[in-house]
Amino acid sequence: MQLKRGSTNGITDVAGVQTGHVTLYEELNEQDTICTGVTAILPHDGSLFRQKVRAASSIINGYGKTAGLIQVDELGLLESPIMLTNTFSIGAVMQGTLQYMLNDHPEIGDTASSLNIVVGECNDSYLNSMRVPAVKPEHAVQAIAGASGGQVEEGAVGAGKGMVCFGYKGGIGTASRVVEGYTMGCLVLSNFGKREDALFADFGKKDMETTDGSIMMIFATDAPLDNRQLKRLAKRASAGLGRTGSIIGHGSGDIAIAFSTANLYDHASRSAGETVSFLRDDHPVMNRLFQAVVETTEEAVINSLRQAETTEGRKGRVVEKALLD
Amino acid sequence: MQLKRGSTNGITDVAGVQTGHVTLYEELNEQDTICTGVTAILPHDGSLFRQKVRAASSIINGYGKTAGLIQVDELGLLESPIMLTNTFSIGAVMQGTLQYMLNDHPEIGDTASSLNIVVGECNDSYLNSMRVPAVKPEHAVQAIAGASGGQVEEGAVGAGKGMVCFGYKGGIGTASRVVEGYTMGCLVLSNFGKREDALFADFGKKDMETTDGSIMMIFATDAPLDNRQLKRLAKRASAGLGRTGSIIGHGSGDIAIAFSTANLYDHASRSAGETVSFLRDDHPVMNRLFQAVVETTEEAVINSLRQAETTEGRKGRVVEKALLD
Amino acid sequence: MQLKRGSTNGITDVAGVQTGHVTLYEELNEQDTICTGVTAILPHDGSLFRQKVRAASSIINGYGKTAGLIQVDELGLLESPIMLTNTFSIGAVMQGTLQYMLNDHPEIGDTASSLNIVVGECNDSYLNSMRVPAVKPEHAVQAIAGASGGQVEEGAVGAGKGMVCFGYKGGIGTASRVVEGYTMGCLVLSNFGKREDALFADFGKKDMETTDGSIMMIFATDAPLDNRQLKRLAKRASAGLGRTGSIIGHGSGDIAIAFSTANLYDHASRSAGETVSFLRDDHPVMNRLFQAVVETTEEAVINSLRQAETTEGRKGRVVEKALLD
Amino acid sequence: MQLKRGSTNGITDVAGVQTGHVTLYEELNEQDTICTGVTAILPHDGSLFRQKVRAASSIINGYGKTAGLIQVDELGLLESPIMLTNTFSIGAVMQGTLQYMLNDHPEIGDTASSLNIVVGECNDSYLNSMRVPAVKPEHAVQAIAGASGGQVEEGAVGAGKGMVCFGYKGGIGTASRVVEGYTMGCLVLSNFGKREDALFADFGKKDMETTDGSIMMIFATDAPLDNRQLKRLAKRASAGLGRTGSIIGHGSGDIAIAFSTANLYDHASRSAGETVSFLRDDHPVMNRLFQAVVETTEEAVINSLRQAETTEGRKGRVVEKALLD
Repeated sequence: MQLKRGSTNGITDVAGVQTGHVTLYEELNEQDTICTGVTAILPHDGSLFRQKVRAASSIINGYGKTAGLIQVDELGLLESPIMLTNTFSIGAVMQGTLQYMLNDHPEIGDTASSLNIVVGECNDSYLNSMRVPAVKPEHAVQAIAGASGGQVEEGAVGAGKGMVCFGYKGGIGTASRVVEGYTMGCLVLSNFGKREDALFADFGKKDMETTDGSIMMIFATDAPLDNRQLKRLAKRASAGLGRTGSIIGHGSGDIAIAFSTANLYDHASRSAGETVSFLRDDHPVMNRLFQAVVETTEEAVINSLRQAETTEGRKGRVVEKALLD
Repeated sequence: MQLKRGSTNGITDVAGVQTGHVTLYEELNEQDTICTGVTAILPHDGSLFRQKVRAASSIINGYGKTAGLIQVDELGLLESPIMLTNTFSIGAVMQGTLQYMLNDHPEIGDTASSLNIVVGECNDSYLNSMRVPAVKPEHAVQAIAGASGGQVEEGAVGAGKGMVCFGYKGGIGTASRVVEGYTMGCLVLSNFGKREDALFADFGKKDMETTDGSIMMIFATDAPLDNRQLKRLAKRASAGLGRTGSIIGHGSGDIAIAFSTANLYDHASRSAGETVSFLRDDHPVMNRLFQAVVETTEEAVINSLRQAETTEGRKGRVVEKALLD
Repeated sequence: MQLKRGSTNGITDVAGVQTGHVTLYEELNEQDTICTGVTAILPHDGSLFRQKVRAASSIINGYGKTAGLIQVDELGLLESPIMLTNTFSIGAVMQGTLQYMLNDHPEIGDTASSLNIVVGECNDSYLNSMRVPAVKPEHAVQAIAGASGGQVEEGAVGAGKGMVCFGYKGGIGTASRVVEGYTMGCLVLSNFGKREDALFADFGKKDMETTDGSIMMIFATDAPLDNRQLKRLAKRASAGLGRTGSIIGHGSGDIAIAFSTANLYDHASRSAGETVSFLRDDHPVMNRLFQAVVETTEEAVINSLRQAETTEGRKGRVVEKALLD
Repeated sequence: MQLKRGSTNGITDVAGVQTGHVTLYEELNEQDTICTGVTAILPHDGSLFRQKVRAASSIINGYGKTAGLIQVDELGLLESPIMLTNTFSIGAVMQGTLQYMLNDHPEIGDTASSLNIVVGECNDSYLNSMRVPAVKPEHAVQAIAGASGGQVEEGAVGAGKGMVCFGYKGGIGTASRVVEGYTMGCLVLSNFGKREDALFADFGKKDMETTDGSIMMIFATDAPLDNRQLKRLAKRASAGLGRTGSIIGHGSGDIAIAFSTANLYDHASRSAGETVSFLRDDHPVMNRLFQAVVETTEEAVINSLRQAETTEGRKGRVVEKALLD
C-alpha cells in the first residue's frame, strides 16, 4: 500500500454512498441450511433513477450471471442500486429492486421510461442450500431501505454470508484510498481461490473441496469521470486480483463495476445538451486513481477474510476464519 | 429474398428447435389492461443443461436488459431455454425458468454446478400495464413445458402480445432459409420503429406516440459453428434491420442471439478434450449463412406485422394491424 | 432519403474537414498495372496532434488491416489524419504520415509524446498489381498536403482508383445530411458486393470473379459527441450497408470510424480537468444523427459507383461503370 | 512460482516456436543515438501463411499502436510472424515483413489472398532517437530470417534494446511452464513502471524521468485451444502484470497476444469443414494454463530486467541494470 486510506477505509468514504445488508441464516434440517443474503450499494441518497450516475463495467472473467450491464455499457449510466446476492436469487432480487423503484417513481413504466437494474452474484452453494429459494423480493427491498453511510459491515454478512475465499470464510470486504482530494472506494463480494494460491498469507495446501467461485468488485469515486474512463478503472481490478494470488480461474465470474458520484445525469432534463467537467486522462491523478483501484481490490479481498467469522452451512460443512496478522 | 425458405418458414425448421407461448390478456379496469406474455425458444428437446449448444450474441444497441449474455460470450455455450418477455418481468421469468431447470436437474446448485439463464425483453408499456406484475414464474414454466416444434405461432402472442412495430401491431415473427443442406431460422420479438421509417411498405407519416422500442432476434441453425462464428452471424442482424428501415434508434434495445444445434457440449464429460467439426469461415457456404441472417431478419420483422391482429390495451389504446400485401 | 443534404453532399460539409487524393496509374507491362492511390481525411485544418478530435470506431467485420484503432478506442481521440490506401500499402502510408507529422511537430517522439496514426485499407488486387510497392511514403505526404475543403472528388480516385463494388467500378463516395443545425458527413472507400446483391439497382447476375472486398466508412460531424456516442454512430453504418444490399461478407473488412469536430482536446493542456458540452443521448436529435449515418452510408456507396469511370487494370481486366439513373 | 519451468524457461520451449532479433546501436552525435531494434516471433518453422495458427489478443490498456489485431480477433487466426519494434517503426517493419512473406508466397495479392501482419511496439524514445527512421524494412526481414529455436536471447536486444522497465534497463524477457504435458511460453517486451511500484524488489523511490511505457506480451502454447480460449488466456496477463507491481498506467500500452501451435489451419483447403480437437474449458488443465500465463508474465518481466545490461542512449542518458538477487 502506498496511497492514503479514507477515514473508514470503506466504499462509503465516497460521500453519499450507502450500503445495506440483509443476512439470512437458518438451519432447516441436517441437509439444508439457509446461509445467504443480499447486499445493496447505493451511489447516493437521492433518486437514483432521476439522478443517474455515470458507470461502466469490466468483465474480467464472464463465468457469471450479473444482470444489467448491457445498458450500463451502452449509455454509461447507472439508474438503480447495485445489488449483490447468490447465483439463484438474481430473479427475486430484480423483482424486489424493481418494486422498490416503482413505489418511489410512478413515472417508471407509465409515461415511457423503463428501468435498468443491476444485480451481481456469487455462488454460495458450498454452505448455502442454494436450491431453496430463500431470498425473496422483500429482502432486496429491506437491503435498500436499510442502507446507510458510515462504516461498512464486512465479512459473513449480506450477500457474503455463505461465501468462501482462498479456502477460508470470505464475503464482503471494503477499502478506500484518498487521491489528491478524490476518494476511491471498493467493495467486494469475495468467493474465489484456493489456499495454495494466496500471496498475502501462507495458508498451506490442504484445501477444502469448494465449488467454483467468483468475485464481484464495486468501485465508487467522487472523481469526475465518464464511462470510458470508469471502464479503464474497472479493468485495473484484474491487477489487484493478481496481487492477491488469483489466477482468474475458469469458473470464477470476476466482474468489476465502477461509478462516479460526480456529474449526475438528470433524467427529466429536456435540454439537448449537457455541460460536464471531467478529469483529463493524461493528468497524473488518473494514474493514482488506477493505483487506488489496484490497492483497494487487493485490500478489500483481504479485509473480507479478516472480518469473516467461521461459519457452518449445509450438510454440516464448516468454513473457518482465516488466520491473518 | 434470394435464398430458399424452409418448410414452415420458421425457426422450428431447424430440427429439434421448439417454441412455446403463454399469452396474458385481461382488462383490469379503465386504466389498466394486462396485455403481455412469455415466449420460450428451446434449442433441442433434450436436457439443455446436460447437452449445451454453442451460442453467441451481438449487442447492436444496448438499451436493453437481456440477462445471461455475459456467460454465453465467455464460454460460447447456452444451457437453458431462451426466454422472452416484457421489460419488468425478467425477474419473474428467470425464477420460473430456474425452477423448471432445478426440477429436472437435481445436480444443479448441489454438486457444484450453477446455471445460466437467458431472458430477453422488449418494453410493451404502450399497451400493457407493465407496472402490474402480471407475469409470474409459473408462466415461464408453462411456456417451456408447452413448447413444441412445427409451425410457430406469430403476431400478438406470447411475449409479442403487447408489442408495437413501425406504428402497427408487431410481436412474434419468424422466417427460415435452407442453405446447402443447412437450415437457418430466425425468430424476432419486434417492437421498434416509426411508420415513416418503414421501407417494406408505405405507411405514411401519421404516427402514434409510442414509447421507445426494441427488438430481440434469435437465430438457430444446424450448421456446425463455434461461438466466434455464431457471433459473426449475430452481427449480420443489423444489416437485416437496416433493410426494414430501422435506424437502430437510441431507445431501442436491439439484441441478437445465435445458437447452433450441431456439436452439443456434454456437461458431464470429464475428458480433457473434445473433437468437433466446424465449417470453415472461408467456405462459400458461410456467406450464404450470413445472407440467410440478413434475409430472415427482414422477413421475420415483416411477418410479425403480417400475423399480428389489431389489439386494444391499457387506457383504451388501440394498435392496428398493418395493411400489407 | 428523408433528411436534408448538406451543400455539397459531402463529408467536407462539416466545417474544417478536408480531403486529399493521390492517384497512381501506370501500365507497367501486359501483366502489371499500377492502379491504386492514397486518400487523406483531415478533421480540421489546424494541428491534429495538438488539437485532437474525439473519435471512435466500429468493427462491423474484422477481415481488415486498419491500423491505429486500438488507441482511438482507449482514449476516444484521433490525433492524425485518417488515411486510406490498398491493403499492402499500410506500412508506406504510416511512414509517410508519420514523417509529415514529425516535420510539423518537433515535440513528437522527443519530449515524451508518441503518435497514433490511423490507416484503413481495401484490397484492390483485382485491378491493381498490389504486389508491386507503388505507394511510397511521399504519396501519403502529398495526399495530406494537398487536402482541401469543398467538393470531394469521388469515384476512381485516390485510394478508390482500383476498387470494385457490386461488380462495377467503385471507390470514393461521399454524402452528407444536415440535422437541426448539425452536419453529418460520410466518406466511403467502397470495394464489396456482388451484382446480384445490389438493392438500389437491378444489376443482373452475371458477376465478375472479383476478390473479396471491404468497405471503409468515415463519418464526420460537428455535433458535440463523446467517444461512446461516436461509437453508437459508427455502429449504425451496418444498417446503411444492409440497405445497399450488403450481406457483410466473410472476406469484407467493414470498418467504420466516426469523429466529431466539436470539443477539441488540447494536447498541451496541463490542467487536471476539462469542461465540455455534449448532446444528451435521449434528445431526439440523436436519433436523427443515427438516421443520417444510415442514409449517408447508403448514399455514399451509391455515389461511389455513380462517379466512378470504367477502369482498366492489370492483366487487361476492365471494370465497367455501373448504369445508374 | 508453483508450476514447473520448461527446459530453457523460454517461449521457444513450445516446439517449433522461433525468435529472432536485430539490434541497432549507433551513437550519431551528442544528441542522437540509435538504440533500438526488431524482434520476430515465429509460431512454427513452416509457411505461416499456408499453415495458420489460432490466435487471440487482449487489449489490457490500449495506449498502443499494435497493428493487425482486428483480423486476428475476427478470424481467430495468425498468418504472419509477430513482430516487435519501436513505436515509430511499425510502418517499416510492416513493409519488411510483407516483403518477406511476398517473396515466399507468389499467391499472396495475386489470386485473391491478402495478408494480415501483426506488429507490436513500445516507445523507446528515452534512450533511442526515435525520430530518426533507423529501422528499415530489411531489418524486419533479417529478424525473421535469423529466427531460431533454442535459448531466447533476453534483455537489451532486438526491440528491447532501448526499453526501460521499473526505472531500470528492461527489454526482452521470457519464461515458460509445463502443464500436464502442455507447454506455455511467454515473451515480453518490457517498458513500463516506476521504481517505487516494483513488488519483486526494493528499488527505492529515486526514479528517472522516463516517458510513458508499455508492455507487449506474447504467449505461445501447444495446448489445443481455439481463439475464444486463447483470449481467455491473454486476459490473464493482467493478473501477472499486477503481481510485478504494475498499475497498468494510463500511458502504457499493455497488449497480450496468444497463439496455439496445435490445430494448424490450412489456407489452401477447399473443404467446407474442419475437424479439430480442443481442450474443454471445464477441465482442470485449463486453470493450470491460466496459472501458467500469470506466472510466466511475472517471471518474463523480471527476466527482462535480470538479463539487460546498463545502456547509454541519446543525450548521454544512461539506464542502469537492476540489482536483482
